[in-house]
Amino acid sequence: MAILVVGSVAFDSIETPHGKVDHCLGGAATHFALAASYFTDVRVIAVVGEDFLPEHEAVFAKRGIDTRGIERAPGLSFHWTGAYAGTMNEAETLGTDLNVFEKFEPKIPGAYTDSEYLFLANIDPVLQARVRSQMPRARMVCGDTMNYWISAHGESLAKVLRDLDVLLINDGEARMLSGEQNAVRAAERVLAMGPKSLVMKHGEYGATGFFSERSFAGASVPKPFRAPAMPLSEVVDPTGAGDSFAGGFYGYIASQPELTPAVFRRAMFYGGVMGSLACERFGTERLQKATRAEIDARFEVFREISHLD
Amino acid sequence: MAILVVGSVAFDSIETPHGKVDHCLGGAATHFALAASYFTDVRVIAVVGEDFLPEHEAVFAKRGIDTRGIERAPGLSFHWTGAYAGTMNEAETLGTDLNVFEKFEPKIPGAYTDSEYLFLANIDPVLQARVRSQMPRARMVCGDTMNYWISAHGESLAKVLRDLDVLLINDGEARMLSGEQNAVRAAERVLAMGPKSLVMKHGEYGATGFFSERSFAGASVPKPFRAPAMPLSEVVDPTGAGDSFAGGFYGYIASQPELTPAVFRRAMFYGGVMGSLACERFGTERLQKATRAEIDARFEVFREISHLD
Repeated sequence: MAILVVGSVAFDSIETPHGKVDHCLGGAATHFALAASYFTDVRVIAVVGEDFLPEHEAVFAKRGIDTRGIERAPGLSFHWTGAYAGTMNEAETLGTDLNVFEKFEPKIPGAYTDSEYLFLANIDPVLQARVRSQMPRARMVCGDTMNYWISAHGESLAKVLRDLDVLLINDGEARMLSGEQNAVRAAERVLAMGPKSLVMKHGEYGATGFFSERSFAGASVPKPFRAPAMPLSEVVDPTGAGDSFAGGFYGYIASQPELTPAVFRRAMFYGGVMGSLACERFGTERLQKATRAEIDARFEVFREISHLD
Repeated sequence: MAILVVGSVAFDSIETPHGKVDHCLGGAATHFALAASYFTDVRVIAVVGEDFLPEHEAVFAKRGIDTRGIERAPGLSFHWTGAYAGTMNEAETLGTDLNVFEKFEPKIPGAYTDSEYLFLANIDPVLQARVRSQMPRARMVCGDTMNYWISAHGESLAKVLRDLDVLLINDGEARMLSGEQNAVRAAERVLAMGPKSLVMKHGEYGATGFFSERSFAGASVPKPFRAPAMPLSEVVDPTGAGDSFAGGFYGYIASQPELTPAVFRRAMFYGGVMGSLACERFGTERLQKATRAEIDARFEVFREISHLD
């Protein structure tokens, strides 16, 4: 079933110990859409500027992603500049040029309104809420956010969290959102804010799924689930790994008839698979060229490195 | 089969967000021995002072641990003072009074020389090497170390590493020892220094086992193995969690006829089980009162929270 994602389509300038790239295609919605496209149909809502060329459009088209919701505006696209050093677990943001994104007013094409799965990538929660309200028939809504929105736009964010099926954030964001240092208690508090389930991402250590009594109708509340991450000897560029995780996770869920605890667990493995692929090359290079067979082979590696027998 | 552990038996004064304890029984060999005692026979080599009373001796005796190698010396026992705050992932050391430990000369009782499994807990690598050389018939030798020995006693440590079966250290120590930030490459470098296998501990995120072609005779080199940690809503006191992990890990291995990849993986789960139990109370309180049934039940929880089906 189709996933509609709203978020940024942008250009990234990135420096890591492995090199430097200038203005490569990036943005949360881009990474998410590419990762999810290996599992299901994906539709994108975003805004880009005049620097978004046919060659960039082709990246989406080649993966069969519906770009009718990508609006063109006069000016330049959103541009992020960042660098990674040391353990490469966190980016240092060197510049954020919002450009056309500053006045982004998401518009949902008529052809998108039947999307059953909605993903609210990391953008202003006011916009997340606006898109959400225009998709009343969405069967499932997942979302992401970040420190900036948590600290400065908490009230708008609270409204978005209230009816989210799954929130995907990292440890630090969960701690900030909940005011709790202990991860389990942080998860409990976050779930009390609305999300039925929480996927807490731990970077190179994998992710933990936390569940509430609302996670799976009729089923008992599962214990937290720990998914591993791929031990990578070369992390070329971690930019977009979290969005790629979300894409693999949600793409797999949307490809399944029903969300069960077993589907959720497998979805977390697929999230890890797509996140690890994303790190192997700069920008979206690796995600453009994966194959489903390769993805499923890595899924089996995830099983092998985490299962007793 | 019997494990001989050499290391510290000490007193700890600890402050955490959950409270404060003064001079409770601790030390790496103590936590290790208690954790391992649920799986196999354990013998301890350490030195204590006049403050080590029959009530402390009883803690070992109740778990059937052989204390004939715990030497009594005039003066006070090793005393560590530390505190935890925030995420509680790292202790702040407030004081280290070596006392009788300063002149520790490990002596191996005759009754101990047939121990097939040797554990070199975190002490001066010169002493680790001395004990190692007195146990030429040991079938397997595992060890631990810490930042202090890595940075200031690298040469002595290198000798110990050279013929270790398994080295158990945390991420930061592996990075420091190898000079590599990437965990996989850090592991490769550490394995090149001698240890046949490496268990890299990630605190609340579990642990990763890394293997070399010397890990399992005749078998192909397994991929790294990721063991989860227990999601704990209350970490009362993480002191000794790493030593308890080592005790559970090595105790299980010593209880098995042969070290296979499957035994290694299960041992990592048992390590996580004992480490998580240790965190639930101050000092060794929780490790004194566990039962094997409870340990095996938690092992099954570890399986449940990490396995797809």
